Formats: sequence, structure tokens, C-alpha cells
Amino acid sequence: MTDIQTLMTDLGQRARAAGRLLSQVPGPVKDAALRAAAAAIRQAAPVIAAANAKDMAAGEAKGLTKALLDRLMLNDARIEAMAKGLEDIAALADPVGRVLAEWDRPNGLRIQRVSVPLGVIGIIYESRPNVTADAAALCLKSGNAAILRGGSESYNSSQAIMAALRQGIEAAGLPQNAVQMVPTTDRAAVGVLLTMTDYVDVIVPRGGKSLVARVNAESRIPLFQHLEGICHTYVDGAADVEMARKVVLNAKMRRTGVCGSTETLLVDKRFAALPVLVKDLLDAGCEVRGDAAAQAVDPRVIPAIDEDWRTEYLDSIISVKQVDGVQAAVEHVNRFGSQHTEAIITEDPAAAEAFLNGCDSAIVCWNASTQFADGGEFGMGAEIGISTGRMHARGPVGVEQLCTFKYKVLGSGQTRPG
Amino acid sequence: MTDIQTLMTDLGQRARAAGRLLSQVPGPVKDAALRAAAAAIRQAAPVIAAANAKDMAAGEAKGLTKALLDRLMLNDARIEAMAKGLEDIAALADPVGRVLAEWDRPNGLRIQRVSVPLGVIGIIYESRPNVTADAAALCLKSGNAAILRGGSESYNSSQAIMAALRQGIEAAGLPQNAVQMVPTTDRAAVGVLLTMTDYVDVIVPRGGKSLVARVNAESRIPLFQHLEGICHTYVDGAADVEMARKVVLNAKMRRTGVCGSTETLLVDKRFAALPVLVKDLLDAGCEVRGDAAAQAVDPRVIPAIDEDWRTEYLDSIISVKQVDGVQAAVEHVNRFGSQHTEAIITEDPAAAEAFLNGCDSAIVCWNASTQFADGGEFGMGAEIGISTGRMHARGPVGVEQLCTFKYKVLGSGQTRPG
Repeated sequence: MTDIQTLMTDLGQRARAAGRLLSQVPGPVKDAALRAAAAAIRQAAPVIAAANAKDMAAGEAKGLTKALLDRLMLNDARIEAMAKGLEDIAALADPVGRVLAEWDRPNGLRIQRVSVPLGVIGIIYESRPNVTADAAALCLKSGNAAILRGGSESYNSSQAIMAALRQGIEAAGLPQNAVQMVPTTDRAAVGVLLTMTDYVDVIVPRGGKSLVARVNAESRIPLFQHLEGICHTYVDGAADVEMARKVVLNAKMRRTGVCGSTETLLVDKRFAALPVLVKDLLDAGCEVRGDAAAQAVDPRVIPAIDEDWRTEYLDSIISVKQVDGVQAAVEHVNRFGSQHTEAIITEDPAAAEAFLNGCDSAIVCWNASTQFADGGEFGMGAEIGISTGRMHARGPVGVEQLCTFKYKVLGSGQTRPG
Repeated sequence: MTDIQTLMTDLGQRARAAGRLLSQVPGPVKDAALRAAAAAIRQAAPVIAAANAKDMAAGEAKGLTKALLDRLMLNDARIEAMAKGLEDIAALADPVGRVLAEWDRPNGLRIQRVSVPLGVIGIIYESRPNVTADAAALCLKSGNAAILRGGSESYNSSQAIMAALRQGIEAAGLPQNAVQMVPTTDRAAVGVLLTMTDYVDVIVPRGGKSLVARVNAESRIPLFQHLEGICHTYVDGAADVEMARKVVLNAKMRRTGVCGSTETLLVDKRFAALPVLVKDLLDAGCEVRGDAAAQAVDPRVIPAIDEDWRTEYLDSIISVKQVDGVQAAVEHVNRFGSQHTEAIITEDPAAAEAFLNGCDSAIVCWNASTQFADGGEFGMGAEIGISTGRMHARGPVGVEQLCTFKYKVLGSGQTRPG
């Protein structure tokens, strides 16, 4: 055994023990711990800011981009937002111990499906230090132990946040090891973490494509992962023109860098106002890459190539295609999409039903913006991410999705015949 | 690309296309297909029997054990049971399209979580030819396309069953490719199947430990897998003696080769009738490996070694240990068990609650035999297996567990602010 392996095994064993204990803790105790952690974060704000200053200086010396430095940066408002986030999660309903279903059998057995924590959750993320607090809190609320592995750029900031969290958790009488940080920036630790099937039940990679790809390739542990968000908005022939204009513009342009932003606009050939939609986008500063129909609208439209239908721009760029009705739209979505979020704009319930049922995606919207693809907007309070996988958690992953279930079989001495 | 890769990719693409179609098929049409498949199986009984005779002859020549030959063997009764099984699955409620939850948001959006098929399911099994019909039917009922890979010993039998199934499915107007069999006994095909992440959504290995271990090691696709069933029955100090005797004997001896059979008996030191339990087991022909307390009961009791607490005997053998109360029992279960099925026998609700909540297992029983760990006994109608994993499906995997969900977001033109 190398040192890293020993280190990680110890970490895993502590997490498993803490997770077993946490799974039995009543909701109010977990909530008290989250509020104590929020108080500890506020109290430690100067320490956290000082640690962050060290990371920022190192990041600048290393030549990190402005965008990365902005993600890394913590100020008073961001530290307060972290503390507030912990309190918001404390205010959510306890996801553990809910009877999800129950029924009786002819032999008198009563069977209950009851929600329980998943166990130990590993979170691998990049340079946003606030993920340390958010992810730890979501795990604690759902009765899971957390092992966090942040980016090396934010190591000092995350350490300082983690110290405050653990102090709060301990003050509430819960084990500090409910949340742990991998205590090394050695990349080999990630490789070990991804194979610790005895101690870790699910891994959540949070970051860009290369991080997710590495985790996906190496992990022996199930993942809640987010691949691409190639989201579509389809404007049906029976769409209300003003609604279509408003929703399309929001779906693409509200924020272009989020996973729920629309990347491809499909327009029914029966919808006469295609030119209005395209001009709205162009006028809003969006680059439009279109098929022949879209190109005919305006000279600013660039010809789309095949690659465009498969591209998540995450930018002020959209691909536009005219299609022959809702079935053609569904076929395009299922062929080129990433099963994330799609929307139809129509006044025709039959077309809406065909689209909502036909698109094989985690989230399908009728007369609403694809930008609603978000746990907060769904009313989940907070999310640890959006899953593009099909198993267990699909779409936003909130505290409810961080639980599994067990069956309780309640009898009066029944034996099985035969 | 090798030939096997091309062959498997074609298979996968056909499955994906069939799965997309199947996901939209109304329940009654799937049920009609299942009944037509049952009729086709009955009609093809002589053909299936002849194919099976070929497999049996080859198996005998190869020197298969009697147990394996018995698993392989099909007679009229077993063929009829397969057909009946298809009809039973047709009679289940449609698991697809159920609104699992729905709620409204302050902005007027209505959000529905709706069950949908998982997609394409790969089933890798050993020499039981009836799995071909059972697994295909469970997949079809839940709107999933199936790719089956049976053991080479049952290849001819499975082919004949598959031909009948596909004939029935086609007669009902559904695509034959809803169910497909890997058309080669080449083992390399399994390796390819396990990496076809674009075409297969979940893999179900059904078979012994070496099969499951291989699939686990190689698969890049999520699994519903069954590892061990090291199941415990704990007899609490407050147990009714006659109930304890009856349930313990059933839990161990009803069938010793099933995954829900009890392998370890834990007895509270406050329970005075330990000797009666041990003698019942010995008298029923069960070998007892015990700690000092159990050894003191009867000279036939063999000393248990550490390895016994971690062993799934699947035989008329039990390990017996005296423990100090319910917490000690829970600790033993969580330390040595396999998170499958455990039972407590007690008249004390507080002890029962501590045990049911404390044991981190898929199924926990109160005053009932661990042998109830079965989809049929749970009222699920049929199961494709029992999952010892924690994600998505835990415990019996029936048609409901072969579904995932999507979110439908129903609006009236909402856009997301900010």
C-alpha cells in the first residue's frame, strides 16, 4: 500500500462510520448542525478571506484566466451567501424516513418502501470554493457522509471553509467526519477515490467536460454526472407568435453559459413568423447558424453545418432549422440532442403531448423556457447538479435524489410456504 | 472494427430504435404482444423441446453436472410455465406513463414526474433457458428493448424460445427487435456489449459469482447486480419463543439455495430458548457452526471461525452467535452482512424499530422470514433479479424498477427572470 492509498482508505472508513451514524440522526439535529455551520462560516469570514487571498495570489501568479479567477474569488457577499445557503438547506423538509409507498399482502405482511440516505458521497469539483459548503450541506441534510475533493487552485479556501463547517457540525453533536476533504492535492488521490467501492456509494463530478470525462473513464463507483446540455426549443405551427418570441429569446439569451440554455431552435414550416424569431435573436446579439430557410431571412445568418446540430455552444450562438411538424422535431431532438431539456411552444395539446412523450429527455417543457432546468426553479431548494444519466436521479439532483430506499416488511410471524 | 464489433453495434442500433418506438406503445398493445408470444411459445413447444434436446445431449457429452443439466432441461410443464409467465406479466399494470409526483410552482408552472422506460436493457445470464422468456417479457412490459445473452450451453433452446417470442411480438404489430439475442456464443461479444454506452442503458447479470464479478469488472454501463445474500435473523430477548422457532426454521431451511435464506442466526443473551432454536436446526439436518454459547447447547455444534460470519453458505449450514441486545445485532449485521435481507423476531416495537432502521440493508423484516425476499412475494408479479446495489433499484427489480422518469414542465409562456 502506498501512502495515498492508506490515506484514502482511512478517509473512506471514517466516512462510512460517520454515514452509518448520520443515517439515524433526526432531522432537527441535522438542521441544527447546518445552522451552526452557517454561524461558524460567518465567524470565520476573515480567516476564509485570508485563505482565499492566498489562492488568488497563487492563481494570478499561475496566470489563471479572468473567468477562473472570478470563480475562485470570495468576498464578504459570497461568504454570506454560503452561510445563507446552509440555512436555506436547513429549512428544507427532511428527505429521510419518508414512507414512499406501502401496501399489504394477502398473507398479512405489510410492506413499506422508506427513504434512507445513499451512504457516502464523493464530490469532485473544480475551483469554485462555494461548492465546498453547498455540497457538504446537501449531503448532511440527506444523511450522507461527504468526501470532497476540490480543485488545487481553491485548496486553501476550501480548507478554511471545511474547518468552519466541521466546527459547526461538531458543535451540534454530530461527528466532524460527516464531511471530509481529501487532504492532498495529489491527483493520484482522485484515482484511488474512484475505486473505493467499499466506502463510497456515488460520485458526483462537478466541472467541465474534461473532468467529467476523466471521472467517467476511471470510476468503478456509480455516478451522478452531467454531460452535455444540447437543448432544443421547437416552435410548432400552432404556436402563439408573441409567446414564441418571448420564450425563444429567454431560452437562448437569458444566460448563454448555463446547461439549460437552448442551443438549437426548430421551427415548424407551418409557423409563418420564423423571420421574426431569427431577427429577434440577431438583434439581441446572437449569432445565428441556419439551414436554407433561416438563411433566407437575413444576410447575417451563417450557414449551419452538420456539426452545429451536435454542438453545445454555451455562448451567444444558436442553430436554427425548419422542420416538417412535431414528429420531425422529435426525431431531430432524439438524434442530435443530449437528453437534457427540450421545449415546445404550441397552443395545440396534441402536438404538445407528442413532443413531451416523444422526446427522450430528462426535462420536457410545454410553453416554458428551457432555462427552467434547475433544481431551485423546480422547488427542490438546491441541487448538487443536474444528471444527464437515466438511472436513479435524472435531471436536477436535490436532497430527495441523494436518498435511496429500503423495504420494511412488517409481519406477525409469517413464514414462506413451499 | 472487427466483425464482432460491427455485429454488436448493429444489434445495439436496432435495439435503440426499437426501444424508442416501444416507449410510446400503449399498455394494451404490449399486453397483446405478450399474450401472442405466449401462444407462439405453446405452438412452438415441439420445436423448443427438440432444440433443448440438442443442448442436453451436448451438455451430457461435455460432462455438465446434474444440477446444471436440470437447470438446462425443458419439458412440457416448464414450457407451459414459460407461456403462463408471459401471460402473468401481461396482466400486470402498465408501469409506464404514471405520474409519480406533481406540484405547482409560484410562477404557475406545473411540474410532473412521469415514469418512462429505461431504454435498452442487456441481460447476461447462464444456462436457464426460461430466463430468455422471463427477462424479455419484463423488458417488453416496461417498454424497454432487450438484448439477451444466454449461456452457450442453452444456446439452441434460447434461440428457439426467442424465435417464438419474436413471432408473437411481430404478430401484435410491434417490432421484432424489441427483443434480440446476441447471435454468437463468442465470449468477446460480452466484452463489446458491456462498453456499448450509446446503445445500452443498463446491464443485468444473472448468474453465479464469477459471472457477476466479470460483468462488474468490465462494464462501463450501470448494473442491476446481485452480489451476496448473507442474511441474518436476530431473535430478540422479547421474542415469542414459538414464533422464533417457526420463523428461524423457515428462514434457514425452506430453501437453502436461495439468496434470501438466513446464513447467520443472532440470538439476544436475554432470550432463554437458544437451545431450542439450535436443536430445531440440528434436528432438521442443518449443520450449526456456533460461538461458545451455541456450542454449549449440543455437542453436534461445530465451533464457528471468523470466516463463518462472512460466508453465504447457500446450503444446510448456519452460523449462530449470541449477542448483547439489538444494537450489538445491528453492528454485527452492518459489519459482516451484504446489505441484502435481515429479520428481527421480537414483541418489542422499540427493538424492532432500532433493528429496522439500524440495519443498512435493502430488506428488513419484523416477525417474518427472510425468505420473503422475492419480487413475487412483494406483489411485484415477477422480478428480473434482486439488486444488492443502492442506486435506482434496491431489492427486487420488477417492471416498475425497469423504468426511469422524466419531468414534464407545463407552462403558459413562462420565462425565467434574472
